[in-house]
Amino acid sequence: MNLSESPSDTIALAHGSGGLLTHELLREVFLKCFDNTVLAEMEDSAKLPPLPPGQLALTTDSYVVQPLFFPGGDVGKLAVCGTVNDLAVTGARPLYLSCGFIIEEGLPLDTLVRVVDSMATTALSAGVQIVTGDTKVVEHGAADGIFINTAGVGVIPPGVDLSPSRMRPGDVVVVNGPVGDHGIAVMLAREKLNFHADVVSDCAPLNGLVAALLEAVPESADGSGAVRCMRDATRGGLVTVLCEWAESGVGIEIEERAVPVREAVRAVSEFLGIDPLYSANEGTLALVVAPDMAEAALAILRAHPLGRDAAVIGRITAEHAGRVALRTPYGARRILQMLAGAQLPRIC
Amino acid sequence: MNLSESPSDTIALAHGSGGLLTHELLREVFLKCFDNTVLAEMEDSAKLPPLPPGQLALTTDSYVVQPLFFPGGDVGKLAVCGTVNDLAVTGARPLYLSCGFIIEEGLPLDTLVRVVDSMATTALSAGVQIVTGDTKVVEHGAADGIFINTAGVGVIPPGVDLSPSRMRPGDVVVVNGPVGDHGIAVMLAREKLNFHADVVSDCAPLNGLVAALLEAVPESADGSGAVRCMRDATRGGLVTVLCEWAESGVGIEIEERAVPVREAVRAVSEFLGIDPLYSANEGTLALVVAPDMAEAALAILRAHPLGRDAAVIGRITAEHAGRVALRTPYGARRILQMLAGAQLPRIC
Repeated sequence: MNLSESPSDTIALAHGSGGLLTHELLREVFLKCFDNTVLAEMEDSAKLPPLPPGQLALTTDSYVVQPLFFPGGDVGKLAVCGTVNDLAVTGARPLYLSCGFIIEEGLPLDTLVRVVDSMATTALSAGVQIVTGDTKVVEHGAADGIFINTAGVGVIPPGVDLSPSRMRPGDVVVVNGPVGDHGIAVMLAREKLNFHADVVSDCAPLNGLVAALLEAVPESADGSGAVRCMRDATRGGLVTVLCEWAESGVGIEIEERAVPVREAVRAVSEFLGIDPLYSANEGTLALVVAPDMAEAALAILRAHPLGRDAAVIGRITAEHAGRVALRTPYGARRILQMLAGAQLPRIC
Repeated sequence: MNLSESPSDTIALAHGSGGLLTHELLREVFLKCFDNTVLAEMEDSAKLPPLPPGQLALTTDSYVVQPLFFPGGDVGKLAVCGTVNDLAVTGARPLYLSCGFIIEEGLPLDTLVRVVDSMATTALSAGVQIVTGDTKVVEHGAADGIFINTAGVGVIPPGVDLSPSRMRPGDVVVVNGPVGDHGIAVMLAREKLNFHADVVSDCAPLNGLVAALLEAVPESADGSGAVRCMRDATRGGLVTVLCEWAESGVGIEIEERAVPVREAVRAVSEFLGIDPLYSANEGTLALVVAPDMAEAALAILRAHPLGRDAAVIGRITAEHAGRVALRTPYGARRILQMLAGAQLPRIC
């Protein structure tokens, strides 16, 4: 790091002016960390290399998490993983990301560099390139440290067709691992709660796991795609995903006992009166798979580092269409609702 | 507008929770205003219809302008125009936009609706669709009203190749209209300066103008593309664009007298000690064109409502390579520098 012209080691309004300091920040931080030839052209738009065949997918998310750094991740890692995962669960191979920074005047330059470094490392591990970006600086007090927006483009390979409308009664609901880690990790980091709980965000890029799954179990015996739909269970947690799916007109039944939840997460959740099934995840997805391919799908997931604790948690039903039912360990059945309020804002 | 479940007419943290209120906001505001079938799928990523042939372009910008509404535009119109223009000046036909909102808790719902309506109207007039989005809500005081990020994808038609590296000595520098309007309009609106000046932002989508130009003057007599490069002169104004271009190794000479500046903008600028050549624009672009096609290009621009005041302002030179020189009305020559500080933050 050598911001020679910079009058100080914090971000100033002039870093967002489009003038000299903006150019210096670009060269010394963004171009160095996100080292790639497309970005290096520094045009108003990135001109992308030819894409593989398939359907283009476009997604976006803004990241406003507080604190910026938490066990298992930071706002930069989150900004890459979240957008990569939104593409992956649509069946797309994530390829290129844009990033827009809104930075509060006075932010230590070191903090920005740590975040950008983390984005670069995560992008490398996910196999995506950050090819275009923008930096705005707002006055002290007009934002909260750093907000990051990432948009992403990817390509859905021919033959891949994931959609909630493809769910059928009898299909199996699977998760790739324990739920609730991210929400609880951020809550503990934010509130500085004095738990001796070792909870780490699950924040991870899921595109490798998804690609392995779609390649290994392409079709059900009926000739249609074996994987019906997928979604990463971010804000609102697992239950929100299931409720959104149920809106497409099927019933969903979940076995409470079958949903993996880490001991520490369960303990903290119980203490705080939070339901881990509504707690945010950033590397955990739910998927629906044809019954004849469920065992094969589970085996593929468990063979991947991000799916070791994959589990079947329920199934699609013709009964109680439009609703999600939870079967408790005592055999009772409870209808689950979407989150009505805000369990924990600024979670991602 | 009928947000039946909403407890009030302002944005609450729960509108960003991913739960019930988020879904209601989506349905009642975003889906209604941005009415299109791709967005209506509400998947984690938008699945785009097949694209026309050509090279994909990707761009992004965040918009943090204060005030949110100003003469000639608002943050929503800006967010669409800015990203459409970044695609257009790369030679791309803008097609699809994403949008990410970061909203401050307590924002009047009406304000959001006005902004979203403005985005929808502008997108319609620019011929682009807003196909995917995200909403985050942060606590009162943690942001400033609304920040919007838009990313955009477009396709550069085969044969179009715009790049500063294509400029040659003798090429002609053109602008499509007067410079400085946006910066001065926002400054007057923000500072509530008691000028009786009628200054309106130039905020407009330039893709129609650019497409007309590229279609009408495709080639120079030497067989290469007649238009060498284009850039919209946003933050840092016209001079910043020229300085960036000069960095590619050519000299640029501008006739001060030839640069169109509205009388009101000139008067306010002089009073405030601002140089309109550094003032931001949001519908004004500079372009470099082969000398044999300059007259034809000018005629095409002037025939378009957004290019009526187009003018030749200078030329590319072999002398003073890497630098931009301004020839004053008195014949003196002054080297222009990029903006060193921040003339006016939060301009876009």
